Amino acid sequence: MLKGHQTWEFENNPVIISTGVVGGPFEANGPLANDFDLLHEDLWIKQDSYEKAQKVMLEESITRAVEKAELRNEDIHFMLTGDLINQLTPSSFAGRTLAMPYLGLFGACSTSMEGLALAALIINANGAERIVTAASSHNAATEKQFRYPTEYGAQKPPTAQWTTTASGAAVVANIGDGPVVTSATIGKVIDMGLSDPFNMGGAMAPAAADTLVAHFRDRDLSPDHYDLIATGDLGKIGSPILLELLEDKELHIPIDTIKDCGLMIYRESQPIQAGGSGAGCSSAVTYGHLLNRMKNGDIQKMLIVATGALLSPISFQQKESIPCIAHAVSIEASPNAST
Amino acid sequence: MLKGHQTWEFENNPVIISTGVVGGPFEANGPLANDFDLLHEDLWIKQDSYEKAQKVMLEESITRAVEKAELRNEDIHFMLTGDLINQLTPSSFAGRTLAMPYLGLFGACSTSMEGLALAALIINANGAERIVTAASSHNAATEKQFRYPTEYGAQKPPTAQWTTTASGAAVVANIGDGPVVTSATIGKVIDMGLSDPFNMGGAMAPAAADTLVAHFRDRDLSPDHYDLIATGDLGKIGSPILLELLEDKELHIPIDTIKDCGLMIYRESQPIQAGGSGAGCSSAVTYGHLLNRMKNGDIQKMLIVATGALLSPISFQQKESIPCIAHAVSIEASPNAST
Repeated sequence: MLKGHQTWEFENNPVIISTGVVGGPFEANGPLANDFDLLHEDLWIKQDSYEKAQKVMLEESITRAVEKAELRNEDIHFMLTGDLINQLTPSSFAGRTLAMPYLGLFGACSTSMEGLALAALIINANGAERIVTAASSHNAATEKQFRYPTEYGAQKPPTAQWTTTASGAAVVANIGDGPVVTSATIGKVIDMGLSDPFNMGGAMAPAAADTLVAHFRDRDLSPDHYDLIATGDLGKIGSPILLELLEDKELHIPIDTIKDCGLMIYRESQPIQAGGSGAGCSSAVTYGHLLNRMKNGDIQKMLIVATGALLSPISFQQKESIPCIAHAVSIEASPNAST
Repeated sequence: MLKGHQTWEFENNPVIISTGVVGGPFEANGPLANDFDLLHEDLWIKQDSYEKAQKVMLEESITRAVEKAELRNEDIHFMLTGDLINQLTPSSFAGRTLAMPYLGLFGACSTSMEGLALAALIINANGAERIVTAASSHNAATEKQFRYPTEYGAQKPPTAQWTTTASGAAVVANIGDGPVVTSATIGKVIDMGLSDPFNMGGAMAPAAADTLVAHFRDRDLSPDHYDLIATGDLGKIGSPILLELLEDKELHIPIDTIKDCGLMIYRESQPIQAGGSGAGCSSAVTYGHLLNRMKNGDIQKMLIVATGALLSPISFQQKESIPCIAHAVSIEASPNAST
């Protein structure tokens, strides 16, 4: 399983047998609306707090994924979830509702791929037959916690990103039909000294570069191995910085191959400044849009590089810079496509 | 590896080759002071915030564990850590210092055994040769975040627990000498409707009972299999409730076998109300005192049941009850003692 320094290769073909993807009103107006299983018309989702709305979205995404696989909650051995809210409030409370053995994870927006990496590892090692993993975020809950309640109408600079209101869930199993999780590279915490919480993409790009270099080194793969490398989420500011850093590190990935989930999920005309972000962005885009493209034969092999800014409101107040991380997981279309 | 519904049995003998345990001034006055590698005389640890003091303790515990194993940081494949602070601030920033591939975990005070369970699973599955796992807490940082800054001098009821200032770290490896991690049971979120953050022990006892029942069911073991079952941390209020719940569930564990980390770490004469708590309590007591007793031949087989209260300041303000969880990990003295 361990390959090189920080990568797992999964020889037993852990398979994504189903997914569930839920979004909010902003996502309903985006170009990927058709890739969601459920879209809510308002941010409250009939709850009395945004945190509870996020919890409901998370539950809905997991329930859809479990139902689509024709399973019951009791058939799921473990639930691996996380989010951006203090003490993973939406995840922990969804754990109460769903009553599955629960492992809470935190990697900020990289939580989506931290969860998929660990789920695939546990399945690959016969530690479970079926695991559900999910990551969620909610625009208003996140803004309130990290910056200001959205009701204040605070202005944001053009480098700021828009936290996605979404939850993406996947059921990973030891047998079944679907795309296969072939490998995962766990990232190191990288901090180049940036401290502006309104420019996360710039802060996170070096972590994405570090993990990409480690992934290709550990797997001894050529950079053109993948049809698509999707970062999540560097946005308009971080994406070109990543390309520059990769050139500096002499990792020459064909430029058309690299896309960013935060730039895919919204239209240019939506007021999202530098692009989408949030743990729900890369999970919803991957488990919805990208896996649909894989099912349609449009993509054979892809690498999802989920980036996380591991700051907290208190570390920002204490004038700390922003430690960042990125975890990469490769997904391939056919069970025997693994190199 | 999967045994029953929610338990892993580790057939490849993942071994705890070294540990590092660091504490604060309150712990220095407790009965387990000799089991710490390092004790600080004041809560600030020469830092300008309590969160940074906690980060330093975490780094020190990991560095001690790595040095005692005669390893360098580069020899550690993955670092699995977590704590109680929003967005795992101490863990994430320690991840920056230590530069190891990093997986952030959150299970409140159960994080200690969530980390050991996953570390043992990854080692058992050949996903790494050496992993460091650690959990930490800091009294003043935790009080400030969840209740009031300690400088306010707020009074607490006798059911309240005292958050430990401590960090315990362990290096788990695929070969070497030391106690063996033989199994782990991952808990479900259990919430019996208690909402008083000054009575965590009472809230967490049902989660401990649920996980203990699952552990003995899944492993098909008799309740007298273990010399010691250590909960962490139910304290004076939760511990007798656990015994009652186990009787109700007809799991008859010899009463002398069950101890609580939160009751071991302080003296009766210290003003700690219902006992110790915090992610650093069960990690420090397990990786310090209990493993020392195992080395001395005093314990052969033990089960650590780390309990976590998954509330957040915001869920408390929103008048939610407290979802709780417990993860159990068994540690045995000799490599071939596994049943």
